[in-house]
Amino acid sequence: MTQLNGGVVPPVCTPLTPERELDVASLERLAAYLIEAGMHGLFVTGSTGEVAYLPDDMRRQALEVVVGVAAGQVPVLAGVIDTTTPRVIEHARAAKAAGADALVATAPFYIPTHPSEFPGHFRDIRAAVDLPLVAYDIPVSVGHKLPADVVAELAADKTLAGLKDSSGDLDGLRAVLENTPSDFQCFSGSETNADLGLFIGAHGLVPGIGNVDPHGYVRLYDAALRQDWDAARVEQARLRRLFQLIYVGDGRIGRYSSAIGAFKEGLVLRGVIANATTSKPMIPLDDAERAAVRQHLDEAGLL
Amino acid sequence: MTQLNGGVVPPVCTPLTPERELDVASLERLAAYLIEAGMHGLFVTGSTGEVAYLPDDMRRQALEVVVGVAAGQVPVLAGVIDTTTPRVIEHARAAKAAGADALVATAPFYIPTHPSEFPGHFRDIRAAVDLPLVAYDIPVSVGHKLPADVVAELAADKTLAGLKDSSGDLDGLRAVLENTPSDFQCFSGSETNADLGLFIGAHGLVPGIGNVDPHGYVRLYDAALRQDWDAARVEQARLRRLFQLIYVGDGRIGRYSSAIGAFKEGLVLRGVIANATTSKPMIPLDDAERAAVRQHLDEAGLL
Amino acid sequence: MTQLNGGVVPPVCTPLTPERELDVASLERLAAYLIEAGMHGLFVTGSTGEVAYLPDDMRRQALEVVVGVAAGQVPVLAGVIDTTTPRVIEHARAAKAAGADALVATAPFYIPTHPSEFPGHFRDIRAAVDLPLVAYDIPVSVGHKLPADVVAELAADKTLAGLKDSSGDLDGLRAVLENTPSDFQCFSGSETNADLGLFIGAHGLVPGIGNVDPHGYVRLYDAALRQDWDAARVEQARLRRLFQLIYVGDGRIGRYSSAIGAFKEGLVLRGVIANATTSKPMIPLDDAERAAVRQHLDEAGLL
Amino acid sequence: MTQLNGGVVPPVCTPLTPERELDVASLERLAAYLIEAGMHGLFVTGSTGEVAYLPDDMRRQALEVVVGVAAGQVPVLAGVIDTTTPRVIEHARAAKAAGADALVATAPFYIPTHPSEFPGHFRDIRAAVDLPLVAYDIPVSVGHKLPADVVAELAADKTLAGLKDSSGDLDGLRAVLENTPSDFQCFSGSETNADLGLFIGAHGLVPGIGNVDPHGYVRLYDAALRQDWDAARVEQARLRRLFQLIYVGDGRIGRYSSAIGAFKEGLVLRGVIANATTSKPMIPLDDAERAAVRQHLDEAGLL
Repeated sequence: MTQLNGGVVPPVCTPLTPERELDVASLERLAAYLIEAGMHGLFVTGSTGEVAYLPDDMRRQALEVVVGVAAGQVPVLAGVIDTTTPRVIEHARAAKAAGADALVATAPFYIPTHPSEFPGHFRDIRAAVDLPLVAYDIPVSVGHKLPADVVAELAADKTLAGLKDSSGDLDGLRAVLENTPSDFQCFSGSETNADLGLFIGAHGLVPGIGNVDPHGYVRLYDAALRQDWDAARVEQARLRRLFQLIYVGDGRIGRYSSAIGAFKEGLVLRGVIANATTSKPMIPLDDAERAAVRQHLDEAGLL
Repeated sequence: MTQLNGGVVPPVCTPLTPERELDVASLERLAAYLIEAGMHGLFVTGSTGEVAYLPDDMRRQALEVVVGVAAGQVPVLAGVIDTTTPRVIEHARAAKAAGADALVATAPFYIPTHPSEFPGHFRDIRAAVDLPLVAYDIPVSVGHKLPADVVAELAADKTLAGLKDSSGDLDGLRAVLENTPSDFQCFSGSETNADLGLFIGAHGLVPGIGNVDPHGYVRLYDAALRQDWDAARVEQARLRRLFQLIYVGDGRIGRYSSAIGAFKEGLVLRGVIANATTSKPMIPLDDAERAAVRQHLDEAGLL
Repeated sequence: MTQLNGGVVPPVCTPLTPERELDVASLERLAAYLIEAGMHGLFVTGSTGEVAYLPDDMRRQALEVVVGVAAGQVPVLAGVIDTTTPRVIEHARAAKAAGADALVATAPFYIPTHPSEFPGHFRDIRAAVDLPLVAYDIPVSVGHKLPADVVAELAADKTLAGLKDSSGDLDGLRAVLENTPSDFQCFSGSETNADLGLFIGAHGLVPGIGNVDPHGYVRLYDAALRQDWDAARVEQARLRRLFQLIYVGDGRIGRYSSAIGAFKEGLVLRGVIANATTSKPMIPLDDAERAAVRQHLDEAGLL
Repeated sequence: MTQLNGGVVPPVCTPLTPERELDVASLERLAAYLIEAGMHGLFVTGSTGEVAYLPDDMRRQALEVVVGVAAGQVPVLAGVIDTTTPRVIEHARAAKAAGADALVATAPFYIPTHPSEFPGHFRDIRAAVDLPLVAYDIPVSVGHKLPADVVAELAADKTLAGLKDSSGDLDGLRAVLENTPSDFQCFSGSETNADLGLFIGAHGLVPGIGNVDPHGYVRLYDAALRQDWDAARVEQARLRRLFQLIYVGDGRIGRYSSAIGAFKEGLVLRGVIANATTSKPMIPLDDAERAAVRQHLDEAGLL
């Protein structure tokens, strides 16, 4: 099993055929492209990977394809995203069977859950499936923030191997970093404050737009590693401009539809995947929005 | 197929064995008890039925058990609760195969979704599975309210057959009632303002605590049918006091754990189900909390 | 001093000259119009009265004008709206000096306040100024709901004489009514569920659109008094349609600007006040929006 | 008039006598202490200065005292905090009369306000009182975030001279910095991510706990100025530990009461002010909580 050790670990997009089946060939190309670009791991079936839209079979299939391409070169993390413990455990078993190197699970959602119920949730998942477990803190999706002291408690007893922080709360991430062992793997999910995450000591990055510009995040990460903060900021500034492409559909369609549509359109334009189809009920980008994506890539020097 | 026609349609609890398997015998007794008490339908795998905690197999099994007991006497509605369209459709197909008379689906959740994406969601579900479709408006779980004009649009084109309103927003429910055909089935999910729902014209009720005191809700519903509002209010006042039992665990454990634990404890005390086990990661009631449930039932004359 | 005793107590609009000074003549006409229409009290410097926009001098002046017109025929309630206790007490003293019969105060706002600090807030106001004190529950403005048990505690010790509930939470209002003496004055702030408020036992109504159609709310209130719920619902249905006028500017301008602009435009159209100017930074209705207000009034038979 | 030019500009606490009058001598000592410690400006009647609790006379008096002590050595900023434009303008006039060098105003609050109404609000304030105007972005108090494009628009037309960002949203602060002239003064209101604010280009800091440990923030600021990020982080880590003192009363009393109580207790312990009285309805720290404050100061080497 390949071990998680910080670095850039993008949440891999899930290419679909026009009929909304998994586009296996495109996913293989994408995984290979990301590994060749120097990614330190691949996160499959995350939010950017449309996990909330994929039936179980497609989740499994997508994971198997990426595990096959990775072939042990880099660790493959699997998002096991579902409402509560028993349902998450089913995904966790399937992910282990498909060859995942680690699991990424959120706090319970749909049902309002009390912080006193978070530890049991993660401990039961960890007990049921023997793979490193990363907590996924994503309040915008699950409706509550994982408290830093809960994360610290679950790091101390080895329930958790790491944290993917998509809360945007750098204060909270600092609190986790201050209260966990130095090998507890903390990843920032921010595309636009990735330099700040690394500045405060995070071990790695999980940038959605890393699908489109993996090399940019490698440059940013390497600059941070050598403490060259000027270079890191310059790269971050460039990536911040590029990231504006997620807003191309804003107002007309949902922000998530806009962002995922833009990432996939970008991958089509860069010749990595075959088409930009997104899952239902997302609304596709229209022609003007697709042209805007092209312009963003052009300005970022990616065409 | 048995048709939905208003009335009291409780969200059936899902009894579990101490090992957290489905307790089939208890579920059979519960379904029979509710039908005998005069329920006009049964809503299986709803939020009160711990749907968010049940793996797919248990959802299917619970539905089959209730369909078997109902045997066409009353319609059986199946909650097909999942994050987005493709996943909901899988549940919808399974529910139809298991014999459901109607489907109940929420708006997408986990992923922030735009109101422009709601119509496509429900239309795709309706197109995929030929069963009456009821929209489930539950902002506390999915993070957004179903706008009344979206519901009206989907009622007008026959996508939706009804609405289960668990938003607590009586203003919005009135707007739906004012803008849909008179046979569009509107259900209030409120235990404590059920009389108000009926007063403004709702067709039925989906009270969680109807598991424990179905006769009370029948009395309330019948009083409303004959426009005897004094009687309806008196019954509602009694049921409001009884409903306080959901707070027995408040503060120590989550409100949902407290409520579901109390409903199940109540069903044990009334001799309907065998034990009060709830799904993980819910925390069980402690002895003092269980005693408080008993006292609530005692005061309500249910022991 | 004139005593508060339920009924319809509209939050009186504050007419302004085009230069945004108080339009005294218009306010005198409005107050006289409302009293003649049968209002049971007048609530000055409430949210609908643009209290948050009026400098202290204008608040005092508006109150004095209405007190003068009321001349003891009906009680005049004064909103004493400010961030915290010491500032509210200054307004309370000024309101008493200006002749108010009762005070209406919210929970603290701007600064996040803990429920444990609510009782002291209201007790200090009550102790500082000897006038009946009504708590104003308006979460949309102050960011938290007044818990029913806090209201009950402050009713029991005579700190509070009543509650104006603009939370829209009929469940909570029922809890207050169940746990306070029968003479504790509860007012619903809802224009669109006013019948429901009275159905559950509220003593009165504080409808913003009562400025424009006071007679409608008197009819609704009288029907409820004689338990003629069919008549109450019919009147409520008419008022619900009329109330749609608050949305004329939606999208282009803020909802509050739209609502206050529409109320004032309605009063101009009905010949009560001289012009529809609103405070800064509200954006005025445009011609199309003003025409829409006229159409709403026309359809409601108010022109 | 003394010009604002970045640096550490603490929101000055407002010392009170036990009778809750302004403690002039303590405020004079505090202002002198902060200037001597190297503060680059003083922000009077901010949120930390209990502005929301101070009647108008006390606001004016506090401002006059600090202006007198500053005597042109450093600029004095005055918070002009009230619900809407007309009321803010009254405070602005009073602040100019009292000698303020700049004004700090939030977006409107209490009344839900639409972003389209923000520009008019700030433009009217600026037009009414000729002093540099700083926008105060504090969503936790006013209920909405100032959009970066609104700030940029108001910077471009010289309505605003700067921004105090207490939103905690470093992404948004970056967007402002990227889209405003380099002399547009941006201040971070964060005590715990102050280094990150400076790292991304903010001109200064407004740390509440800078009352208690001004020297620490000067060290942090100076380190950032010379791009010595290791030193900045080390100082920040120390200040993060110290900042934990704001939680001493958590749970028992409100967080704001706890924080302001702790700041004032710290100033008493350091011999700067005479006593730790806070405004009503805040609940004072108890003995155990005061002892905890002492321990925090002790551990930070401040006693």
